[in-house]
Amino acid sequence: MDGKIKISIDVMGGENSPEKTIEGISLFVKRYQNKDDYFFYLFGDVDQINKKIKKFSNLKSNYKIIDTKIVVADDLSALSAIKKGKNSSMWECINSQISYNSDVSLSAGNTGVLLVMSKMILKTLEGIDKPALAGLWPNNKNMNVVLDLGANVECNDKNLVDFSEMGSALYKSIFPNDEPKVALLNIGLEEIKGTETLKNAYSKLKILDQYGDFKFNGYIEGNHITDGNSNVIVTDGFTGNVALKTAEGTANFLTKTLKDSLLGGFLSKISLIFSYFSLKKFKSKLDPRKYNGAIFLGLRGPVVKSHGSIDSMGFSHSVELCYKIAKGKLMDKIKNNLGHLEKLNSDEKK
Amino acid sequence: MDGKIKISIDVMGGENSPEKTIEGISLFVKRYQNKDDYFFYLFGDVDQINKKIKKFSNLKSNYKIIDTKIVVADDLSALSAIKKGKNSSMWECINSQISYNSDVSLSAGNTGVLLVMSKMILKTLEGIDKPALAGLWPNNKNMNVVLDLGANVECNDKNLVDFSEMGSALYKSIFPNDEPKVALLNIGLEEIKGTETLKNAYSKLKILDQYGDFKFNGYIEGNHITDGNSNVIVTDGFTGNVALKTAEGTANFLTKTLKDSLLGGFLSKISLIFSYFSLKKFKSKLDPRKYNGAIFLGLRGPVVKSHGSIDSMGFSHSVELCYKIAKGKLMDKIKNNLGHLEKLNSDEKK
Repeated sequence: MDGKIKISIDVMGGENSPEKTIEGISLFVKRYQNKDDYFFYLFGDVDQINKKIKKFSNLKSNYKIIDTKIVVADDLSALSAIKKGKNSSMWECINSQISYNSDVSLSAGNTGVLLVMSKMILKTLEGIDKPALAGLWPNNKNMNVVLDLGANVECNDKNLVDFSEMGSALYKSIFPNDEPKVALLNIGLEEIKGTETLKNAYSKLKILDQYGDFKFNGYIEGNHITDGNSNVIVTDGFTGNVALKTAEGTANFLTKTLKDSLLGGFLSKISLIFSYFSLKKFKSKLDPRKYNGAIFLGLRGPVVKSHGSIDSMGFSHSVELCYKIAKGKLMDKIKNNLGHLEKLNSDEKK
Repeated sequence: MDGKIKISIDVMGGENSPEKTIEGISLFVKRYQNKDDYFFYLFGDVDQINKKIKKFSNLKSNYKIIDTKIVVADDLSALSAIKKGKNSSMWECINSQISYNSDVSLSAGNTGVLLVMSKMILKTLEGIDKPALAGLWPNNKNMNVVLDLGANVECNDKNLVDFSEMGSALYKSIFPNDEPKVALLNIGLEEIKGTETLKNAYSKLKILDQYGDFKFNGYIEGNHITDGNSNVIVTDGFTGNVALKTAEGTANFLTKTLKDSLLGGFLSKISLIFSYFSLKKFKSKLDPRKYNGAIFLGLRGPVVKSHGSIDSMGFSHSVELCYKIAKGKLMDKIKNNLGHLEKLNSDEKK
């Protein structure tokens, strides 16, 4: 097992689990067949897991089940989850980064609880006040990392600068051949626009550009998130959450309108048949399952949140994300980047 | 002219003006043929206007040109525009609500300058600290009013409550047969979520619901803006601007991806021909020209901003918006709603 990437998975969290989580792991293994490269710790009810896992022969002997009887309910408040959730599959999955020296933890359970438990168990990195929730967002060229998506309603300029460094490390670990290009989400492109917080973050990022962790592209407006010129989009958790959900809502609205139009008349029905392959390609490029998985950044170990209602294919992409950030040495990259921040701060004090 | 709705138009502002503005007015007149109902004051260079306007015979004798030689340049800062812009077509167009007793002013010129000039000339309504920029946004059932779209980067709870009352008045004046349903944009639906500002606005709006100006639906997340259950979406100018532009960007991204897919292969090319009518319907429903026009709310008179780069058809919809808000007695409705706010405040002091 030495040298293998160790991925811990709470197989009980989310809808239709453990069926969908186990099937998701199996789908990942189908795509990544070099089993010498990774190993799974599975946390949950051993009887339920054993019953399901038999069906997926490609998982054989490359996992260890850790029996946990408690499951954190999806509607539990963070406070009561902390009280009742110790020794739950979620808790033990996070804790395995300490107890089993695991590289990364994955759960599709309650987001708020996962964030609070992760903070309690893993603690925040030195110098980081607020861990952030980062997600993937498709753009015209490839993919954006966007953060914060809702962990912190209010952020100061230091937080935004931390997010830029950590988001760049994440980008680099997932896309090792690409350069991270940071932009601050704002309502105008001119340096004088926006809040004081944004202006202060702007001037710090302009200086940090020199260390090569990222290229700083300045401000970006919402309509340019998808153009691919920047790929690490930084904002506070309130704005990020609204932007992400508005984009999601707009996408649903458009595809619904498109479907309604296509189902409209006779000519349209013929067109529907002919459009089938095109639309399939269209949908496949935008399939949200492909970029499923939000990453908590700023803790002493990486924790990935998979969407509770995603299916097994979506879950397999969360497993893939775990694999990639561990393989890409996310934690080393974050520490490297934060070192530059520290250097800047001590230079400023001189 | 008495009894007619008097619409003042800066025909020089925006790209391709005065061609597109005059053609836009003519397109409006084609749709609204009862000329006893409205009259135009046109502000701009009389020679240029006279040269163009001849082509549009349906405008005949239902307008008055007020000759103004100065035009506010699109790239002018608000400060220098104020210095140089007095007696410009924009300035006189706004001022005509005083000098000509006009009902509403329309310009496709520089947004920042228009906002500053409007405030200077028309002054804010009593009790209003911050005028807001409101826009239309399509939803599954009909249309939303969304505000603030960028006039105020930071807002307190009083501002958000003002926006709710003014936005409801706007909604009611454009859609007289519908009930305004207010929602506060937030990152969760529970009462405990969000900033202190949002929580305070929430509890005030819950009480104001009783006056019948609007139904208060509580919080809404970004992915529900388009579902049509609420139709007056209230937020601060930073969040509103990011949300609007993100939706715009997502729509462009999706239609580009769709087009790329359709142009992909041989089968797709056939499908493109068959899809033509469906896609035309799709695009027509989402045509941004139809809901072009942002309204400054909170001044002693209504000012409508048309997008600078919109074409004549888009401009005609801005003219239509002016007509509708004047016909729907927007200012009376705003005063009525703000009266309820005042009553609430004085009741609270007792």
